[in-house]
Amino acid sequence: MDHDMFESSAAAYAYPLLIKHLLHTPLAHAPDQEIVYRGETRLTYRAMRERIARLANGLTRHGAVMGSTVAVMDWDSHRYLECYFAIPMMGAVLQTVNVRLSPAEIAYTINHAGAQILLVHSDFLPVIDAIRDQLDTVQTFILIDESTEAGAHAIPFADEYEGMLAASETGYDFPDFDENTRATTFYTTGTTGLPKGVYFSHRQLVLHTITGMAALASPASGQRFHRGDVYMPITPMFHVHAWGMPYIATLLGVKQVYPGRYVPERLMKLVRDEGVTFSHCVGTILHMLLECEDAKAVDLSRWKVVIGGGALPHGLARAALDRGIDIFAGYGMSETCPLLSLAQIKPGEEPLDIDEQVRVRCKTGLPLPLVDLRIVDDEGRDAAHDGRASGEIVVRTPWLTQGYWKNAEASAQLWDGGYLHTQDIGSIDPQGYLQITDRLKDVIKSGGEWVSSLEIESLISLHPGVSEVAVIGIKDEKWGERPVALVVLKAQASVSEDEIRHHVMAFSESGKISKYAVPRIVKIVDSLDKTSVGKLNKKRLREAFAASLEGKATA
Amino acid sequence: MDHDMFESSAAAYAYPLLIKHLLHTPLAHAPDQEIVYRGETRLTYRAMRERIARLANGLTRHGAVMGSTVAVMDWDSHRYLECYFAIPMMGAVLQTVNVRLSPAEIAYTINHAGAQILLVHSDFLPVIDAIRDQLDTVQTFILIDESTEAGAHAIPFADEYEGMLAASETGYDFPDFDENTRATTFYTTGTTGLPKGVYFSHRQLVLHTITGMAALASPASGQRFHRGDVYMPITPMFHVHAWGMPYIATLLGVKQVYPGRYVPERLMKLVRDEGVTFSHCVGTILHMLLECEDAKAVDLSRWKVVIGGGALPHGLARAALDRGIDIFAGYGMSETCPLLSLAQIKPGEEPLDIDEQVRVRCKTGLPLPLVDLRIVDDEGRDAAHDGRASGEIVVRTPWLTQGYWKNAEASAQLWDGGYLHTQDIGSIDPQGYLQITDRLKDVIKSGGEWVSSLEIESLISLHPGVSEVAVIGIKDEKWGERPVALVVLKAQASVSEDEIRHHVMAFSESGKISKYAVPRIVKIVDSLDKTSVGKLNKKRLREAFAASLEGKATA
Repeated sequence: MDHDMFESSAAAYAYPLLIKHLLHTPLAHAPDQEIVYRGETRLTYRAMRERIARLANGLTRHGAVMGSTVAVMDWDSHRYLECYFAIPMMGAVLQTVNVRLSPAEIAYTINHAGAQILLVHSDFLPVIDAIRDQLDTVQTFILIDESTEAGAHAIPFADEYEGMLAASETGYDFPDFDENTRATTFYTTGTTGLPKGVYFSHRQLVLHTITGMAALASPASGQRFHRGDVYMPITPMFHVHAWGMPYIATLLGVKQVYPGRYVPERLMKLVRDEGVTFSHCVGTILHMLLECEDAKAVDLSRWKVVIGGGALPHGLARAALDRGIDIFAGYGMSETCPLLSLAQIKPGEEPLDIDEQVRVRCKTGLPLPLVDLRIVDDEGRDAAHDGRASGEIVVRTPWLTQGYWKNAEASAQLWDGGYLHTQDIGSIDPQGYLQITDRLKDVIKSGGEWVSSLEIESLISLHPGVSEVAVIGIKDEKWGERPVALVVLKAQASVSEDEIRHHVMAFSESGKISKYAVPRIVKIVDSLDKTSVGKLNKKRLREAFAASLEGKATA
Repeated sequence: MDHDMFESSAAAYAYPLLIKHLLHTPLAHAPDQEIVYRGETRLTYRAMRERIARLANGLTRHGAVMGSTVAVMDWDSHRYLECYFAIPMMGAVLQTVNVRLSPAEIAYTINHAGAQILLVHSDFLPVIDAIRDQLDTVQTFILIDESTEAGAHAIPFADEYEGMLAASETGYDFPDFDENTRATTFYTTGTTGLPKGVYFSHRQLVLHTITGMAALASPASGQRFHRGDVYMPITPMFHVHAWGMPYIATLLGVKQVYPGRYVPERLMKLVRDEGVTFSHCVGTILHMLLECEDAKAVDLSRWKVVIGGGALPHGLARAALDRGIDIFAGYGMSETCPLLSLAQIKPGEEPLDIDEQVRVRCKTGLPLPLVDLRIVDDEGRDAAHDGRASGEIVVRTPWLTQGYWKNAEASAQLWDGGYLHTQDIGSIDPQGYLQITDRLKDVIKSGGEWVSSLEIESLISLHPGVSEVAVIGIKDEKWGERPVALVVLKAQASVSEDEIRHHVMAFSESGKISKYAVPRIVKIVDSLDKTSVGKLNKKRLREAFAASLEGKATA
């Protein structure tokens, strides 16, 4: 620091942005506020703070030091929340292991991150038992014991979570250190190659938390997360810090409900019994919840739900609105901590018309404060903000991964030109709303025009008989590529492929979409390939259907 | 940075917290939103952004470079807002000159800050003309011309604000630099000694802005500042960045109204005509506004007002609530950027009873996120949070001045022990609300007990005939000190000193305050000495009344 520019008294506290500092105000405002696990375990913020210290003391006893990596495999729980704080607050790195990966991938990510300590919920004993010999860096296994019966395994557990806490002191002097210290890491899996590690510092997580709180709290009325809410995540805590929301919820000092493993009936029971008012999940989960028999009797009119991890289909938004849910889309990715934008309706522009409501709530949204978001062409030139021109979304914010862990080549690609490349294609309308139209690699170019697979999927999802849909591009000699729709029907629905094609054709006839965008082939299938985080695996779908469909799509 | 701890791709953008980054989202969300000056001049955010670039180009032409200090003397205006952004965004330092200081003090602060360029509104020409020869560092004078007639002066103006902008380009590539670069400076005047310079970096102002937005936006219902509001400051922009609110308002993208010089009738007209819903001021100003004849016909039921710069008296809070104003207290000081706490009512705890409403809204409040606020004794030990025990308020936040400019001794005192010493005495209740009871130097110790002068002032203010009141300690042989109340009556009121004493006595008899706290002497006076920022000057009051009252207060 240039001393001439900024004179600092020797005694002055140069406040580093550390995760421990997020706890000052919830403990001052709401020490008796509740944190609930599965409706069974209840603790106060004050008690959580004590358990965070106990956890740090326990992990220290097991060898964790500044710079250690501690991996966690658990369902969404108060214990995971304690790990979100205690591990980074010690100066260690929290690795949130994606439990949906294959055992081999799990071993790869734990080894690649170099985790020394692994905390494992009893449900994952079979997985860890199977890969135990492949884990090169783990020295200490700690059990999170919720088993009803002890299954046979040969994992040499050094301790059990609750026993470790009970045997530990409640005093721990969490140190100050450089705010750029790594706090968390996890692995993102594309459809190709090995999982890639992203990582976030204390500074990044604190800024994401405060800015996320500011953005989510600031609308005049709807699409808000505020101090009066009751929070329950329905995005796994291993997945991009459950979108950062547990940190935001803690900073707000609200009641928090952690549901354990996601079971639709239990989730609905918690929403009802605990009075949950704010959640977030991927579209497929909400879809499943709304279909679940137990949901039909629950009043959801006080529930606000952010949908992310993929576009919010118009059909789902309408179904949610019909139930009184204040539903809206959010956008981000593993590399971006993740929050980038939220589809909040602007004050004074609340649309009265349900179709317009759906349209705005399904947009990719307005950027959060400090988010410098652009849509650019191949040469990095800005596309017009006219709602039609599109380009790749590139961003700068203070909370983006500074690279992929130990992968210089992918890091350089990610940050090509000094902006993070999302590989999403989008347009921005004159009102400032971003709309993603495709993934760069899923883009369909037909007859010289770009076809938005996401838009066509959204239109098809509006058909009452459709449960799920994927639109992919299939090579075509005449047109370059043609869109093909793969459709999963609802359980009792009886709809023909032709009916769905005519359903889309109507949008072309009314001028909403170009005729190039109408899939000439609609194929009804039993299910659609998904990635480990529940997104459509279009690469595999293209591979699976290419041979049988290529050439047939030409009209 | 330890490379082993945090690996950063060479191409990654290490986003510095710079004031320019606050502009991304308002320009993306609300480029056509209005900024209004006196109801006469209107411009959009988009136009403001252009004018910021023009201003930077103009100042560059006049020699401003990275590290220059540019001083401003203006009323609250869109131009001042432009200076809030353009000057720091160039890497220069904005000095907000307190125009209420004496000419000699103004010269002292401009020289001490080393300002090279001075922007002066025409109303202050006589002051600058008088001290022109004493200004050692100013090389360039720029006029903000709103004069109706050209008064005689000998200031060699190099340019005029609007002319300078008109002659400048709208392109300016605001550079990146260290976020710890000084952005603003101004001078705080105590009751003793020379004015002391405080200073804030880009990082500090950005964090203050985002955290302030998060805190102000986050309540479930009342005491909020949100994206649907219309903002007008009634705290001068030279005074601690108008409490940081213009930056918050800009980040929110709301309509902003700048009133120029404060004239009660004009302020009320702007509230009505522009639909102002959020403001902030000191208690005496709101008191004056509510008394103003023009206010009586204005509907104030959509107006939210934060009161700071001193305690919010119960009498004023009640009068404001009677008019439908959502009034609440805020706390901070020049050294703290300033926001530290806000008296927001907790969700689910909205009191129905008007007395309880007044009680909560007049508290010093709940700390903002990241604010580490303690009440401590002389040895730095924490006082109990029981609403009774009191201690000095010491704080850590990421936005505190790191010292007094070129004053190492005062800086060391301010930061004694690594916490910033507010010199305010307060208590914290079990609900977490802070309540200031006194200034350290104004504390009255009577009969071995601490008497809260602020509490007694607040109780006296409840008397319908009282306009203003100051309670000071007067030396007393028997009791050490005794409280004395100096009271200014309302215009038409006819109240005796004895009546006021009995009014306070009743609170003692009901057990609300100790008998030591009842002033034995109540003195009705014509006016009360104030400092340049409108606070009671208790030091001068003690000096003025000591001789005549000492010894007389013994009962």
